[in-house]
Amino acid sequence: MFNVLRINTVTGEVKRENGNSKQFLLGGRTLSSQLVSEEIPASCDPFGKRNKLFFCNGALSGTTVSSSDRVSIGSKSPLTGGIKESNAGGVVGLRMEQQGLRTIVLEDAPDKDSQWKIIVIGKDKTELIDGGFLAGKGVYEKSDLLSEKFGKKAGCITIGPAGENLLFASGIACSDPHGVCSRYAGRGGLGAVMGSKRIIAMVILADGEEKVQYFDKEAFQKASKRIVSLLKENPVSTKFTKYGTAAMVDICQAVKVLPTRNFTNGTMEGAEKINAQTMYDTIKERGGEGRTQHACMNPCAIQCSNVYPEKDGKLLCSPIEYETMALMGSNLCLKNLDTIAKMNRIANDAGVDTLDCGAAIGVAMEAGLAEFGDDEAAISMMEEILNVTPMGRILASGVKIAAKVFGVRHAPHVLGQALPAYEPRGTKGMAMTYLSSPMGADHTFGFTLRDEEDPITKEGKVALSKKFQVIGSRMDAMGLCNFVRYSVRDDMTPLLDLIKARYDVEISDTEFDDFVKDTLRMEHQFNTDAGITALDYRFTETFYDVAQTDTLEKIDITDEETAEARMW
Amino acid sequence: MFNVLRINTVTGEVKRENGNSKQFLLGGRTLSSQLVSEEIPASCDPFGKRNKLFFCNGALSGTTVSSSDRVSIGSKSPLTGGIKESNAGGVVGLRMEQQGLRTIVLEDAPDKDSQWKIIVIGKDKTELIDGGFLAGKGVYEKSDLLSEKFGKKAGCITIGPAGENLLFASGIACSDPHGVCSRYAGRGGLGAVMGSKRIIAMVILADGEEKVQYFDKEAFQKASKRIVSLLKENPVSTKFTKYGTAAMVDICQAVKVLPTRNFTNGTMEGAEKINAQTMYDTIKERGGEGRTQHACMNPCAIQCSNVYPEKDGKLLCSPIEYETMALMGSNLCLKNLDTIAKMNRIANDAGVDTLDCGAAIGVAMEAGLAEFGDDEAAISMMEEILNVTPMGRILASGVKIAAKVFGVRHAPHVLGQALPAYEPRGTKGMAMTYLSSPMGADHTFGFTLRDEEDPITKEGKVALSKKFQVIGSRMDAMGLCNFVRYSVRDDMTPLLDLIKARYDVEISDTEFDDFVKDTLRMEHQFNTDAGITALDYRFTETFYDVAQTDTLEKIDITDEETAEARMW
Repeated sequence: MFNVLRINTVTGEVKRENGNSKQFLLGGRTLSSQLVSEEIPASCDPFGKRNKLFFCNGALSGTTVSSSDRVSIGSKSPLTGGIKESNAGGVVGLRMEQQGLRTIVLEDAPDKDSQWKIIVIGKDKTELIDGGFLAGKGVYEKSDLLSEKFGKKAGCITIGPAGENLLFASGIACSDPHGVCSRYAGRGGLGAVMGSKRIIAMVILADGEEKVQYFDKEAFQKASKRIVSLLKENPVSTKFTKYGTAAMVDICQAVKVLPTRNFTNGTMEGAEKINAQTMYDTIKERGGEGRTQHACMNPCAIQCSNVYPEKDGKLLCSPIEYETMALMGSNLCLKNLDTIAKMNRIANDAGVDTLDCGAAIGVAMEAGLAEFGDDEAAISMMEEILNVTPMGRILASGVKIAAKVFGVRHAPHVLGQALPAYEPRGTKGMAMTYLSSPMGADHTFGFTLRDEEDPITKEGKVALSKKFQVIGSRMDAMGLCNFVRYSVRDDMTPLLDLIKARYDVEISDTEFDDFVKDTLRMEHQFNTDAGITALDYRFTETFYDVAQTDTLEKIDITDEETAEARMW
Repeated sequence: MFNVLRINTVTGEVKRENGNSKQFLLGGRTLSSQLVSEEIPASCDPFGKRNKLFFCNGALSGTTVSSSDRVSIGSKSPLTGGIKESNAGGVVGLRMEQQGLRTIVLEDAPDKDSQWKIIVIGKDKTELIDGGFLAGKGVYEKSDLLSEKFGKKAGCITIGPAGENLLFASGIACSDPHGVCSRYAGRGGLGAVMGSKRIIAMVILADGEEKVQYFDKEAFQKASKRIVSLLKENPVSTKFTKYGTAAMVDICQAVKVLPTRNFTNGTMEGAEKINAQTMYDTIKERGGEGRTQHACMNPCAIQCSNVYPEKDGKLLCSPIEYETMALMGSNLCLKNLDTIAKMNRIANDAGVDTLDCGAAIGVAMEAGLAEFGDDEAAISMMEEILNVTPMGRILASGVKIAAKVFGVRHAPHVLGQALPAYEPRGTKGMAMTYLSSPMGADHTFGFTLRDEEDPITKEGKVALSKKFQVIGSRMDAMGLCNFVRYSVRDDMTPLLDLIKARYDVEISDTEFDDFVKDTLRMEHQFNTDAGITALDYRFTETFYDVAQTDTLEKIDITDEETAEARMW
């Protein structure tokens, strides 16, 4: 049940190993980070033969538990220079389970001009076939070609032109239940790591025959239903069901942490033009293929995803999430959902992270290469990324590099990864989380904002961030969607019951959190071994020297405080 | 005699301080590195208000001693993230001395859109005047405008469009005896630091009235003549007198360390087309303004500089040095001196370092953005730099960033600074020096090649590199041209006699070397405090994994060995 499939990308050799241990029981980020730490020399070149790319599903993958099929992708990140896990929804986690796999590992790296390959994993064999026909194409076309060749039910993984060109903002796209590669493990440049191994796609066929085994099926079903009712009762997840993550626009505008004008302001006049209600109304009004609710995997009781249609009702982009609406919207002073949707679509096609590219366009605008609020210029910059022009290369190299090339000091990132959509001078809890994450700035790593009584003070935020680091990491450890956390944050029992009922393994909540904390320790150790120092866990100097225009706050967090927030 | 002029670039406030101490006695890099260490917080943003820019001349500046007027410019480098000293010839050091200055310091930094200023330093006052009329212009035009306004004899310092745009490969141009700003402190992005302070030029008027004071003038003149005869007797400096540094082309081709095809080969077929003899013959044949010998400052008994003319005899570029001929020639498989001269001229006009840009074009060619050996493409890339296009911005951001943006792993640099013109797998002594320099890869930091019996072995190279680190640093400490070292490397007495005769200060050779070693310690400490770790003192992984095609050698130097070479 806990098999590991190792694929050498140079020789094509495939090995199937048994990974039957407690480590493999948990899966997700806990597993990927452990494997990264054990098997990758921390100081290696992310694009060299010593780096590896791990795909890990979770302990409840393939079961009836809501939102449990996420796949964690782990590696050394070219973007941050440190450890990376980025996870995605879709059907890949499920298809891995059906093939009896907990982990797939891509090893070694061929010469840079080697033929592109597709890895095809089926019940009888795993093979590397010619992938040249996909090269240079956008992710939408790649996705269609993969569906055509391997069927819409296959679990497909691919990269865009950005990943093929080793650009640091490139992600990995995983197929959704409709066979569209639209679920991104977007962060950290993992698409470029896959590109460096000359693997243009990986397909897990839908012919897997492994059945999920339960120690106590009845107990499992009962516990699984319990999760659903917890999700249905919870006010946060139910709000996401109606509005998706777009609900955050109004919340962040109210708290004055909506990133605006390259993270100089915390509110945008006219933010209501891109808020959840406007999006909901637009989708409803246009009808057609539009959906205000959509599941990235089945089963899911939240369905926070959506389908945003063109005026004529045809699908324009799916999904559009809050983070993108802020980084590609308010951050650029853009107030048009159609513009954001177009940019998001081009980003998906190019295979890049919307946050990193949105932030990079923000610094380009600050450098005067376009005006803030210029919709056409913003779309045109995204097209440069898709076409891999010199300008596009800069924009898809991450905001840290883009800011250096454009001569801009105010660069919103930590460890090179763009800040998510919470202006950190207005929320010291999120600021603390950004500064504590071994993955670079990451909101899912410890989401404090909803629990900050006074967001602008740093008092108590070390403890608050650490509390949510544990809560968030629990979800990652199980391959569960982060939004499940709202329902189990105070009581892990429903999840531990599921482990017990499936595997006949008793894990106490303390033991579980020990796993999670071990993971955090390992991740930070990897970064230290990779040459990342305490000085790297900082915002750019401008965040400390210049007040945000709405909260009038600066960053006042010290190196000692961030060090404490990284100590486990 | 040891005055320090402090200029606040925000308020315009000017302070003249007395810096009378042993520290100020030595000057040059010893002084600039001490000031950087004492006054700049190591972890600051190089473009922020906490960084400073120091200009320091040396102990023998303004005297009759050959090649003694170099000016050391010190700061925190945006290119390497660490300490930086880069020095230049020309008349700036002399004009400082005549104004009674050992050091000029630019402090603070105005807002990024503030008006450009020119600092004008005269005997009666120092003022900041409007510099807007220079903005956006090339260095040749700036130089003409400055000469027109302030006279050809003024010591002028300016930056090009690259520095104005904060690009990391930008240098600082200093005027030569003809009033042309052609003597570059090219390395480390110091032009961008000056740009970040919104200082587009600094002029030291030729109205200075300080006379050089001597404790014992007769003894000084005697010791000064001794230096000239040592230089005239020395085979290396006399060879430089005839051929300039271009003499290195044949030497490096013979030892198989001539960087070729983005540092993959160590020889180039047809290297004789760009060697010293061809250059000498071309200059002689074309006549006109061409000069095979030329002095960057007076007096100079070496005169390694040259004037390379167009076919019609008009000045095309002055000087052309070996490092440029390799990085912009063989490294790009270009075999035409006219092409190299044109590229060099454009680099001087844009205000960028020829090594860093040549290396960046090399990785662009490896990425397939142009063919190796394509003269027109190479010239056109330089024009992109001059015009600050997106492509030009990438190429002028240093080879480390350029390689990331272009997706190239084989990036010839240490600490972000491009490798000079000695392929390190073929000379482990130079490799050791590159890996030990706190300034990033730098050949002047400890030039071992002429003293390596067996260049490909690493045996004994820690000691050899350290020996030449001290020898090179002695010259830097006095503001002397590096090429003087050949004449005094085994016996410092002639220089110490000069110090005694001028200042009535006795320094023993041991004391002198203690100063030098203290400087090295301070420089490394600054880098450590800036977050640079042992892992940063490495070549890219490709230099360790892939053999150079001519020597068949890889880098086999360990972190422990480089750490030893940095330990003083």
